[in-house]
Amino acid sequence: MDVIQEVSVVGPRQFRNNDVAIGAGNEFWTACRSNGLAGIVANLTGDGMLEDPDGFRFLNLSCCSYLDLDSHPQIIEGAIEALRKYGVLDHCISRIRIQLPMLLELEEALGGLFDARVVSAISASAATAGVLPLLASGHLTRGERPLMIFDKFAHFSMNLFKPVCADETTVLTCPNNDLNFIEDQCKRNHKVAYVTDGTFSMGGHADVAGLLELQDRYGLFLYFDDSHSLSVAGSRGEGYVRSQIASLSDDTIIVATLNKAFGSSGGAIMLPKSRTDMEDILTRFGGPLAWSQPMNTAAVGASLASAQLHDSPELKLRQSQLDANILRFDAQVLTPQRGNGFPIKVVPVANTRVVSCAQELLRRGYYVSPVFFPIVPRSQAGLRVMLRSGLSPAAVDHLCKSIIDVVGQDVEVKHDQDATVQ
Amino acid sequence: MDVIQEVSVVGPRQFRNNDVAIGAGNEFWTACRSNGLAGIVANLTGDGMLEDPDGFRFLNLSCCSYLDLDSHPQIIEGAIEALRKYGVLDHCISRIRIQLPMLLELEEALGGLFDARVVSAISASAATAGVLPLLASGHLTRGERPLMIFDKFAHFSMNLFKPVCADETTVLTCPNNDLNFIEDQCKRNHKVAYVTDGTFSMGGHADVAGLLELQDRYGLFLYFDDSHSLSVAGSRGEGYVRSQIASLSDDTIIVATLNKAFGSSGGAIMLPKSRTDMEDILTRFGGPLAWSQPMNTAAVGASLASAQLHDSPELKLRQSQLDANILRFDAQVLTPQRGNGFPIKVVPVANTRVVSCAQELLRRGYYVSPVFFPIVPRSQAGLRVMLRSGLSPAAVDHLCKSIIDVVGQDVEVKHDQDATVQ
Repeated sequence: MDVIQEVSVVGPRQFRNNDVAIGAGNEFWTACRSNGLAGIVANLTGDGMLEDPDGFRFLNLSCCSYLDLDSHPQIIEGAIEALRKYGVLDHCISRIRIQLPMLLELEEALGGLFDARVVSAISASAATAGVLPLLASGHLTRGERPLMIFDKFAHFSMNLFKPVCADETTVLTCPNNDLNFIEDQCKRNHKVAYVTDGTFSMGGHADVAGLLELQDRYGLFLYFDDSHSLSVAGSRGEGYVRSQIASLSDDTIIVATLNKAFGSSGGAIMLPKSRTDMEDILTRFGGPLAWSQPMNTAAVGASLASAQLHDSPELKLRQSQLDANILRFDAQVLTPQRGNGFPIKVVPVANTRVVSCAQELLRRGYYVSPVFFPIVPRSQAGLRVMLRSGLSPAAVDHLCKSIIDVVGQDVEVKHDQDATVQ
Repeated sequence: MDVIQEVSVVGPRQFRNNDVAIGAGNEFWTACRSNGLAGIVANLTGDGMLEDPDGFRFLNLSCCSYLDLDSHPQIIEGAIEALRKYGVLDHCISRIRIQLPMLLELEEALGGLFDARVVSAISASAATAGVLPLLASGHLTRGERPLMIFDKFAHFSMNLFKPVCADETTVLTCPNNDLNFIEDQCKRNHKVAYVTDGTFSMGGHADVAGLLELQDRYGLFLYFDDSHSLSVAGSRGEGYVRSQIASLSDDTIIVATLNKAFGSSGGAIMLPKSRTDMEDILTRFGGPLAWSQPMNTAAVGASLASAQLHDSPELKLRQSQLDANILRFDAQVLTPQRGNGFPIKVVPVANTRVVSCAQELLRRGYYVSPVFFPIVPRSQAGLRVMLRSGLSPAAVDHLCKSIIDVVGQDVEVKHDQDATVQ
């Protein structure tokens, strides 16, 4: 038999390298699981707590529902009402052909809230899968194929599509928030597109003002995934990036998940109102946006209910409660994120102790995610805590005391540091 | 200002070319919409019909819910019960960390039905996004990086990831179902993986028996997306491909949507029971499978209810009704798909007439999808009809009569051709 064994079929690994990523990641997750900090199975108990099969109850501080809207009765009722009204979870057909009016109603409601033209998706990552390849080929920039720059800290869901974009155009990666790098490319290329998180999952934002200046001067196209700040920021919950932009220019797209603070399930793409052409291109050729998989009826009904809550005093109330909890935490526990107004905090802990500290906190009823080598450098190990609006002041205080007790006095805020906070 | 205008930043376009694809597609969709055959907005009326805002009622024959399970009361109740029980649509956290027992219960139930280890996803395309890059880097083939062959007719949701896979390994495209091409590569390479639809959306299947033989001889890895046949084929609705394989070998993965005949929302990945390692790798590093976006509570509840129906006489009943409707249609209307036992039929119509025929059928109350140049060659134009189990014999007869009446006598089956059918 004519068998020739090639030495290797390895690709260029220009944009990805699973061997390296999985090598580090597997070590991390195996350590988490063997110490009871991953692979947990637990049920919601209706009072904001989780309960495992042995009856052990704990508070999940690794959940992105920052405004606790995920369990809001009106949102759940919205899902149920939609199911009762339409009698299907998914009437399977591409929306290009036939779509239920409810989907348009949702996109209209979200468009009103966010002052944008909105196209929905089953998730923010499905939205990204739909938008980025079309951006790469120039179909969102009036035929002008842009050079694409991905921020080094852009989420995996964007980075996944680097090789796809690179089949259509030139793709570069820039250091986090490096406006000089971007401006340099704007000078060298007629059209440039920049792809980044609006709000990074470990804290910090894109430099929206600086980027808008580059957009003004060079026509820079901006693609933001602002999933972590939707609902949390902005007077109508439009998120950090949208709240920093008076009016979306022809060259700006913001994508955000509806799964986190928004409290339902799905994704939203905010498009400039001036660009009616984008909507057609996206729903016809945007991969998952065009296939027979719109947001399901329950997700649409829940999202419509959440949109109503966003347009009511309830949003401001919950945002204020979250802000107060963030300030309260910052006043007691020292983290690099102190004072940034964002609900994610990483409490520094020595790499050798981070797992045992997380275990002890879980034993005391708090699930926080340990972050340690090899997924971050040893010097950056810590416990990631995600705050929520629904935590009572007493609960935040008890959480802070538990962290200080378990981790040690070095994370406790002394009175002189405290003064500026509240 | 130091502005250098590069002539072009165009990528190699080795695997994709949006200019070409969108050029043809836009012309097609614009023609459909301007003739009222796309962009339709309509509500379900609870009796299997759709109704547009003007009160016009029609039957949707372009819906993939082949067994009409999408509107089954038990499935809708399953979704509602889960929402009531858990009180959230999506408790936003990665399943690697914490997961609701209901998700495991669903995967167990689907695993029982399909005799496989099952991992869920929000859609079949999210499953593909998770699996293919890991297959490319050798992480599903015990470290052996395979050369990958995509079938030329593989769905867009798989082709989208060709450039991603090509960054990790060598990627080729083979003519549809070309076993000689695949065998040739098996002889030249130590490990080969083949990526294909199990059941093609225009009819026809992968050559499962031939592929299993290549797997036996060369260790060929097989990746099937069998979305169009799940629930429709197999005594427990396991789909065409799974029903052709006695036991999934270490080198086989089948992905399928739960949005079509299964009647709910989501995706299922069938893995060999022997490969417990695959599940860990997929849920840790499988992109959308690892991010904070599991199937939402409503989708899980509906899917659990559908799994129960699949394990009851209801499945066989609906499959038989669908089979009868397929035979009934085949006996009256001549298509290239006649006698293939599959619910999708393309009625040949001259390219110049296909739009007006679709319009006239819609006027008579039947929405069928016109397919015409430039998305298919002029010689292959036609009307795509998707049959369902819930159509009464009288409805199928009336549909057939309407098609013959509108399209012309050339599609009518004469008695001599009819004889073998029923």
